[in-house]
Amino acid sequence: MPETLLSSRNLAFELYEVLDAQALTQRPRFAEHSRETFDAALATARTIAEKYFAPHNRKGDEHEPRYVDGRAELIAEVKPAVDAFLQAGFLNANRDFEVGGMQLPSLVSQACFAHFQAANAGTTAYPFLTMGAANLIESFGTEQHKRLFLQPMIDGRYFGTMALTEPHAGSSLADIRTRAEPAADGSYRIKGNKIFISGGDHELSENIVHMVLAKLPDAPAGVKGISLFIVPKYLVNQDGSLGPRNDVALAGLFHKMGWRGTTSTALNFGDNGECVGYLIGQPHQGLACMFQMMNEARIGVGMGAVMLGYAGYLYSLEYARQRPQGRLPDNKDPHSPAVPIIAHSDVKRMLLAQKAYVEGAFDLGLYAARLFDDTHTAPSEEGRRQAQELLDLLTPIVKSWPSEFCLKANELAIQILGGHGYTREYPVEQYYRDNRLNPIHEGTHGIQSLDLLGRKLAQNGGAGLKQLIRLIATTGERASHHPRLDALRVPLEQLVNRLQAVTLALLGDLARGKISAALANSALYLKAFGHCVIGWRWLEQAIHAEIGLLNGHQADRDFYLGKLQAARYFLTWEVPGCHNDLALLEARDDTCLGMHEGWF
Amino acid sequence: MPETLLSSRNLAFELYEVLDAQALTQRPRFAEHSRETFDAALATARTIAEKYFAPHNRKGDEHEPRYVDGRAELIAEVKPAVDAFLQAGFLNANRDFEVGGMQLPSLVSQACFAHFQAANAGTTAYPFLTMGAANLIESFGTEQHKRLFLQPMIDGRYFGTMALTEPHAGSSLADIRTRAEPAADGSYRIKGNKIFISGGDHELSENIVHMVLAKLPDAPAGVKGISLFIVPKYLVNQDGSLGPRNDVALAGLFHKMGWRGTTSTALNFGDNGECVGYLIGQPHQGLACMFQMMNEARIGVGMGAVMLGYAGYLYSLEYARQRPQGRLPDNKDPHSPAVPIIAHSDVKRMLLAQKAYVEGAFDLGLYAARLFDDTHTAPSEEGRRQAQELLDLLTPIVKSWPSEFCLKANELAIQILGGHGYTREYPVEQYYRDNRLNPIHEGTHGIQSLDLLGRKLAQNGGAGLKQLIRLIATTGERASHHPRLDALRVPLEQLVNRLQAVTLALLGDLARGKISAALANSALYLKAFGHCVIGWRWLEQAIHAEIGLLNGHQADRDFYLGKLQAARYFLTWEVPGCHNDLALLEARDDTCLGMHEGWF
Repeated sequence: MPETLLSSRNLAFELYEVLDAQALTQRPRFAEHSRETFDAALATARTIAEKYFAPHNRKGDEHEPRYVDGRAELIAEVKPAVDAFLQAGFLNANRDFEVGGMQLPSLVSQACFAHFQAANAGTTAYPFLTMGAANLIESFGTEQHKRLFLQPMIDGRYFGTMALTEPHAGSSLADIRTRAEPAADGSYRIKGNKIFISGGDHELSENIVHMVLAKLPDAPAGVKGISLFIVPKYLVNQDGSLGPRNDVALAGLFHKMGWRGTTSTALNFGDNGECVGYLIGQPHQGLACMFQMMNEARIGVGMGAVMLGYAGYLYSLEYARQRPQGRLPDNKDPHSPAVPIIAHSDVKRMLLAQKAYVEGAFDLGLYAARLFDDTHTAPSEEGRRQAQELLDLLTPIVKSWPSEFCLKANELAIQILGGHGYTREYPVEQYYRDNRLNPIHEGTHGIQSLDLLGRKLAQNGGAGLKQLIRLIATTGERASHHPRLDALRVPLEQLVNRLQAVTLALLGDLARGKISAALANSALYLKAFGHCVIGWRWLEQAIHAEIGLLNGHQADRDFYLGKLQAARYFLTWEVPGCHNDLALLEARDDTCLGMHEGWF
Repeated sequence: MPETLLSSRNLAFELYEVLDAQALTQRPRFAEHSRETFDAALATARTIAEKYFAPHNRKGDEHEPRYVDGRAELIAEVKPAVDAFLQAGFLNANRDFEVGGMQLPSLVSQACFAHFQAANAGTTAYPFLTMGAANLIESFGTEQHKRLFLQPMIDGRYFGTMALTEPHAGSSLADIRTRAEPAADGSYRIKGNKIFISGGDHELSENIVHMVLAKLPDAPAGVKGISLFIVPKYLVNQDGSLGPRNDVALAGLFHKMGWRGTTSTALNFGDNGECVGYLIGQPHQGLACMFQMMNEARIGVGMGAVMLGYAGYLYSLEYARQRPQGRLPDNKDPHSPAVPIIAHSDVKRMLLAQKAYVEGAFDLGLYAARLFDDTHTAPSEEGRRQAQELLDLLTPIVKSWPSEFCLKANELAIQILGGHGYTREYPVEQYYRDNRLNPIHEGTHGIQSLDLLGRKLAQNGGAGLKQLIRLIATTGERASHHPRLDALRVPLEQLVNRLQAVTLALLGDLARGKISAALANSALYLKAFGHCVIGWRWLEQAIHAEIGLLNGHQADRDFYLGKLQAARYFLTWEVPGCHNDLALLEARDDTCLGMHEGWF
């Protein structure tokens, strides 16, 4: 039976050939793990995803949450699926054994999560948001916060959300208007409106813990005046029992293009002046705290985009193998039988592009998870610091690149299915619609490009960038030992060299205060930088494919040759296409910046 | 009030500055027309589109046709809209005055139709399909066919469809299995199943006339054995009254990603062996007949794709003007007011790209309509022949380029609206979903690329191509008289020169029988060719903008400067990006062709 969520052969290639997951078991934190325990967790994830998540993916799309008597009603299939996820322990996949966690490396837990993301983006969001909120409380909460709010989340009884966006402000968090007034008991009274709050209401859990950004009365203007609050749906008594309903009201639901299984809510805090919140972290430091959650969320978003792309790729691949239609162009005999459409060169192109996008981005997402492990568990402090610097730099790419190109993969999957792909009788159009959210939420594409060019590159004296350039050079050097990889190495090196020069020039402009001009074409920069990173990861994959072939894994020969061909596709079809982007950046082209609003 | 369907200033620019619609009134067929009669028709189209079509565009999406007791039920708003279209005479916009037509040039009627396509793709399909079917009967039908089927269509009492696709065959019409057996009375008995038949059932008209492809018993295999039949839903008596229901059954409806307002049906012909059809045109010549309809339909599809892009562009433009958010990157004062998002460079980029795509493709669509007029009414036979040769060559581009790039425009419109764009509370996500059909129907993108490279280029000894190259050269020469256009002319000429060389080489390969290799990367060729054509049309528009500026139209200054900036965007940001595509074609790259099915 064909695999529908991801290729387990490709996953094993990533974990055990490219990213060396087994090396992690040498570290004290993961010493009790082995390839066997990793594989057992992965097998469990796959089983639950296939059994409980995938079957209602379409139903969740067709029956989106409804607003009934001030509550959001979901289809019945969501709760058993989330419960299975919780019971298998995935909510605490990374937590310590001693609190009941699985103490897995992030590399392996992300690979587990990937199965759920491919199976059902809508249902998966509920536990994922809860993980993010729980991690925030774990990092910044007091002992009391942990007792009252974190522990029930770990136990799977409370769920979480992140409540940032406000109707008038969108991406501009500096302008939020939600207020927090100190109350006599040390808590706060929250007042304001939030929109697009995913999982903002449901009956899946006893309580919902909203992580809310708001401003204290003495807050300075802008992003330096934002604080973070825990705002539960139901108040919690000191003994942990549920108190009365807090003054948080579901104002309405948004009706989305896709990803319909996840409630998207408008929430009113404090309509009656009685919304109780608890400050978490330092006053005015809320955004810094939230960024921890957002950075994790951005890796999660990137992997989510990958997996929707992956599911579409596998579906269209199987369709192309099964669907006979037409003949090859040099066959003029109408009596000859039709060939499966996978035999047509243009269909191969659309499959190969999808493979290059989704397997390239899958590798990057897992590489980022591996870096995240290194930030905590690399043997040396230097190693941990370096991992953090590189991860910080790569985060905008990990989030944005799959959101753009694995979405494009979904568009190609629809195209391969033709008229059928356009109908809701087949799953690929839903994958596109679900995936279309990813370039928007958790920081739009535009925000990511400014984050990369305007902030991340120069961080720590450019240490992350230097490291990346060094790593790419090392990969190129290793590739040069494989004659077949020369044709792939060269276009990457040409692009990276040019990108490096452009980067220095743009950073120089920024340092000299030419800020608007330097950032004007950040979208071009994001694309070229992303293609360098993915091109590098494909060259890495190609090296490991060559090693696999040299090691004489005959049974895997097709798999490795496919890897080499996808690497060839990406490095010779896609990577050189970025030179015009760099030429425009070199010229500080002002076509867009110079467009007057009145000229449209 | 901002315009929502298209910019009437841009339409006037196209008709009266770029494409010289007034010159058509010098021709005998259009001698009774004038700019005033053209503008009156356009104003009527706009009024009806705004009043009857646009208001139920969302409702048609939310309440797609339902299958009830063997019939397709539509929302009530469709019929009054179609009736208003019919009563205004648009169904016969191009027909002779003497049969009650408006005798408009195609250039003007396409511009009229564009308003409906922007307002409501779903409802517009019903009269459009009818126009196509009516034109087929007019061209190939007998007097009796015309009396019994065409006249009631002209009168707006019968509607039409085109019934080509079969479940097992998709794009491969050579393999259709629907059979037509001769009956004693000179008619035929049709038996077979068709899918994706738009407008295949409804109660909007007294009767539905299906134009059906089927094979006669003695048909040769392949495309040379396909015949065309008129198959009415209700039989028609000799006196024109309706007879009994024909043996055509609605087997079911397809549920689409978008374009939901148009019924997409599965039809069973002859389940009871009693489906009556009438041969139209010569036996085994059906595909040639149908291609007349398909070529018109392909221009219609292209314009439909343009107009969905256009509507999204205008909506996102107005949103960007109204929506305040954030500050410019060199403004660090959080107390300063937020700016409208149109002030952000990356938003300008997304608007400028949309403008370049939709106004470039809009120009091409109208240019093609102007060519269509020339095929009928150019003063010399030579002129008519040349117009036909060029139109044949451009048809795959007119169909495919907007289907790809105006769809991309819709994706950008969603992005500009951010989270709101992703909700169904705003119209842009529907534009994307509706437009996603266009690269699929009426010949997929892949089919168009093969049609261009494998068939159209070499037609008539390459006469169309030579003409196009000459026209582009002339435009370049004229552009060279405007100093500001030098920077735009050069990248176009560089690409065209290289494309010309690649074309000759590929045609040479085809002539030498290297067919699979030459056609393997037809997708790259289609893109580069399309960018040359659109780049040429943008240079034409830029020349006319320069002329407008020189003529001192001060009131229009902003409009013309916007045209110049959009031309600059397309010719310097997009056109040079095709060089890697051409390099791959030059190298006869076999990355896709050489990919083995087992390697995926």
